[in-house]
Amino acid sequence: MKIALAQLNYTVGDFEKNVFKIKEAIARAKKEEVRLIVFSELCISGYPPRDFLEFRDFIDRCTRAANEIASECIDVTAIFGCPTVNPEVEGKNLFNSAYVCSDGKVIDVIHKALLPTYDIFDEYRYFEPNRKSHCIKVDGKKIALTICEDLWNIEDDPMYVHSPMEELIKENPELMINIAASPFDYGHAEKRKSILSRNAMQYGIPLLYLNHVGAQTEIIFDGGSLMMNEKGHLTGEMKYFEEDFALFDLTSDRKATNDKTVSKIERIHSALVLGIGDYFRKQNFTKAILGLSGGIDSAVVLCLAVEALGKENVLPVFMPSQFSSKESVTDSLALCKNLEVKHELIPIEKVYREYIHTLQKQFNGLQPGIAEENIQARIRGMILMALSNKFGHILLNTSNKSEIAVGYGTLYGDMCGGLSVIGDVYKTEVYKLAKHINHIRAIIPEAIIIKAPSAELRPDQKDSDTLPEYDQLDPILYQYIEQRKGPQELIEMGNDAGLVRRILKLVNTNEYKRHQTPPILRVSPKAFGQGRRLPIVGKYLS
Amino acid sequence: MKIALAQLNYTVGDFEKNVFKIKEAIARAKKEEVRLIVFSELCISGYPPRDFLEFRDFIDRCTRAANEIASECIDVTAIFGCPTVNPEVEGKNLFNSAYVCSDGKVIDVIHKALLPTYDIFDEYRYFEPNRKSHCIKVDGKKIALTICEDLWNIEDDPMYVHSPMEELIKENPELMINIAASPFDYGHAEKRKSILSRNAMQYGIPLLYLNHVGAQTEIIFDGGSLMMNEKGHLTGEMKYFEEDFALFDLTSDRKATNDKTVSKIERIHSALVLGIGDYFRKQNFTKAILGLSGGIDSAVVLCLAVEALGKENVLPVFMPSQFSSKESVTDSLALCKNLEVKHELIPIEKVYREYIHTLQKQFNGLQPGIAEENIQARIRGMILMALSNKFGHILLNTSNKSEIAVGYGTLYGDMCGGLSVIGDVYKTEVYKLAKHINHIRAIIPEAIIIKAPSAELRPDQKDSDTLPEYDQLDPILYQYIEQRKGPQELIEMGNDAGLVRRILKLVNTNEYKRHQTPPILRVSPKAFGQGRRLPIVGKYLS
Repeated sequence: MKIALAQLNYTVGDFEKNVFKIKEAIARAKKEEVRLIVFSELCISGYPPRDFLEFRDFIDRCTRAANEIASECIDVTAIFGCPTVNPEVEGKNLFNSAYVCSDGKVIDVIHKALLPTYDIFDEYRYFEPNRKSHCIKVDGKKIALTICEDLWNIEDDPMYVHSPMEELIKENPELMINIAASPFDYGHAEKRKSILSRNAMQYGIPLLYLNHVGAQTEIIFDGGSLMMNEKGHLTGEMKYFEEDFALFDLTSDRKATNDKTVSKIERIHSALVLGIGDYFRKQNFTKAILGLSGGIDSAVVLCLAVEALGKENVLPVFMPSQFSSKESVTDSLALCKNLEVKHELIPIEKVYREYIHTLQKQFNGLQPGIAEENIQARIRGMILMALSNKFGHILLNTSNKSEIAVGYGTLYGDMCGGLSVIGDVYKTEVYKLAKHINHIRAIIPEAIIIKAPSAELRPDQKDSDTLPEYDQLDPILYQYIEQRKGPQELIEMGNDAGLVRRILKLVNTNEYKRHQTPPILRVSPKAFGQGRRLPIVGKYLS
Repeated sequence: MKIALAQLNYTVGDFEKNVFKIKEAIARAKKEEVRLIVFSELCISGYPPRDFLEFRDFIDRCTRAANEIASECIDVTAIFGCPTVNPEVEGKNLFNSAYVCSDGKVIDVIHKALLPTYDIFDEYRYFEPNRKSHCIKVDGKKIALTICEDLWNIEDDPMYVHSPMEELIKENPELMINIAASPFDYGHAEKRKSILSRNAMQYGIPLLYLNHVGAQTEIIFDGGSLMMNEKGHLTGEMKYFEEDFALFDLTSDRKATNDKTVSKIERIHSALVLGIGDYFRKQNFTKAILGLSGGIDSAVVLCLAVEALGKENVLPVFMPSQFSSKESVTDSLALCKNLEVKHELIPIEKVYREYIHTLQKQFNGLQPGIAEENIQARIRGMILMALSNKFGHILLNTSNKSEIAVGYGTLYGDMCGGLSVIGDVYKTEVYKLAKHINHIRAIIPEAIIIKAPSAELRPDQKDSDTLPEYDQLDPILYQYIEQRKGPQELIEMGNDAGLVRRILKLVNTNEYKRHQTPPILRVSPKAFGQGRRLPIVGKYLS
């Protein structure tokens, strides 16, 4: 059986565009005389549609779109994801479903049984879990059709008390198909392959897997749809971070792109470029602005933005104060020259002095401190926002995950922006990204990479005056944030008790700042944002 | 049987304080020769503990605290809420449980069956639902003990496919006890009573209901614990918005506080005062700062803050520009005088001119517009934050729900703050709050109440230049936000089609601003914040 997999980039709620893409792929499949074409989970609505699902009108539009697509399915069967209404009075009002369409109509609808409700996922917020599974039939072949998480209960600590494949396999299907919206993190592709391989082996039949590609605000889908044989060996693999259309049959052996040879940093790099690009394209934005400090974070963000949006669409702004070093100026200018981008240079000293003058009565006799440092950071944020408001540039935030974790940043200052590009990348990894960017051609001046990190908000300031060195800080942050190790476990792992308590307290007491950050492109299994939900008012470890 | 209900105000993760309060109440119960004392849902950890639940260390502390309390239960039985570990490999790792303690030890543990996962609730994120219910025994009496949502499947559109009471009633219990963490909204107390009454009637036994009181960041618990007889009639009711300790027996008839006579605006008023107060008390903050514009929003927030924190702890700052009216100055000063609060007056014109001067090259030849208006709002935000950083005041945000809905506010300007006080109160309701505040004594000058709303960021500006009148806007916002009516339904209800589309587009395209607002005290069934999760990048209705 000739099968087409259409790995496409959808936009939440853009029915017109999503339907157009799906129809176009169906037309292509027909030309190729394909028997079955498969699309990803909730492709009609885009993923995740979030609380749009609570609007009856939104669901009606999904249904109309699905029926419109069904009418195109002549001489070909299509499988695609769409929310459907639960006809029962009891239970949640919706299902997360897969439509099976043929002969111009909907011939079967399969509902998702296992509803991921952790990290960024909120599926039980909207959907009723399916309790009775059945195989579908396409051209006389029995197929076990499941939706994403339905195959994931095969992990060592299974999150659900039953697995739909246990029922489906009793019907002796010839093939498994899984349609997914499985988001990227730097380790996810390998984990995904391992889980899918275990399924193919356990049930002893081939497996087709179809994933989303593209970014939806902070969530990045990496594609990598694939086919495995009944032994769990990869027999075909689709592109990562790009739309793709592929033909398989049950004995297919398309050359794998072999994702394993791609390094973690390369994957993060690709994900961030896609994340920036889709944030702009899906909102019809073209131009970005960002503050350039002379440090490594803004240098890396500038490079990524230029790659995603084009050098003519990115405006770096250098805003020196009396505390900015000469090197910051020359290094920043050298970077802009290497990238061939225009820049603005706007000194902030006069505005700063006017602020201090305005506040002289209130601040009279007090030593300069955090308040004065924050004023500088906020003047820069305001200048960037003023240019954004005047010329329509979207402000890219340049904070890294280490700073955001410990609250080493100024709310309404350097924490401003429409999108945080490297807010899920620890400082020590930002250096690796810089080296990766410089790998082919030295774009980021070496001086920016080797100098000691500094906010340059007072004379001779260094990050290490306030924070532990990043190579001490980042591993503890990783264990606390990604691995959810508590203080006792961290100390038992050999970390200094005082350091652990100091860092955990900083992380927890700065939750209020993270509440007000821009959306952060998610590249790790635990990013700040909707996937990590901590109380602002809370005494635990604070 | 003499039963004590302890309606207490807990703090998430503050084990020391929570345990202290619980032990104190148990000691009091012992003195009163009570047989059973009941506390609320997850009182050991505070509610909602959110992702703290993912830390093994946090769960260990809960368990230790529960055992410590159990050891106090000599000659009295205590029921209290605590997370527990699910011993099964399959399913989520935790249960949301009720401990039953007697003879110095834990004698039974009951798990919650129905896990609210909608609006602000995320319980299925953490907990496995209980599937086999049983009654507990206290002094030989059989009691159907359930946890909050377990009794709520009696609604007309039940969200769950089974109800634990259906099983429990088969054991012929004499009494129902429900421990809860049921958050306030302006209509919730009545809905709650109706649901509880339906349970008592349906199962024909008396019902004891014990709720949290106090605010946890944006979520406000209003207390109102109660007892109903087997006919569903209220026989005892506890205080609203305050801690309370009450003794009941199964034939009790404590005079009800009769919440029904309290108006919606009075309830909102009480909730906001508690919300501000707990945000400060639970973080050991004492002093608040806010910008005073001469408009009704900041006037109302100032009054609420003074009531919650004391007049000596609230600093209003008036920051006039060249566009501020004379009336704004005189009205603001009159308000401060009426409230006997000190204020600061800091003109912003010079800083504004210095900004314009700094940006003259970039802005050269362009007409003043939104960018210049936002600069003024942001200067005010920055001055407030500078004072906050210097003197430790927490900035109260004064935006109302109507503005936040349509994006009529400046990000990093008037949208700054640690806590949004009236961000869940529509403009038309802010007027009602003002009148309510003025009811006993005219605190807010009449001029502030009657003048046309204006941001005063350009000459003769009025909100109605940009927005529909609030009495047109608010009903449509209410239907769209609280009632989830889509565009077609709104038009069918008789609203102008153009107006509906204009408003819905404003709401949806301003999601990015709401992503960066401070936490908003929740007083309606659908507040902006964690209870309303919409995509930032999304084309639906935009």
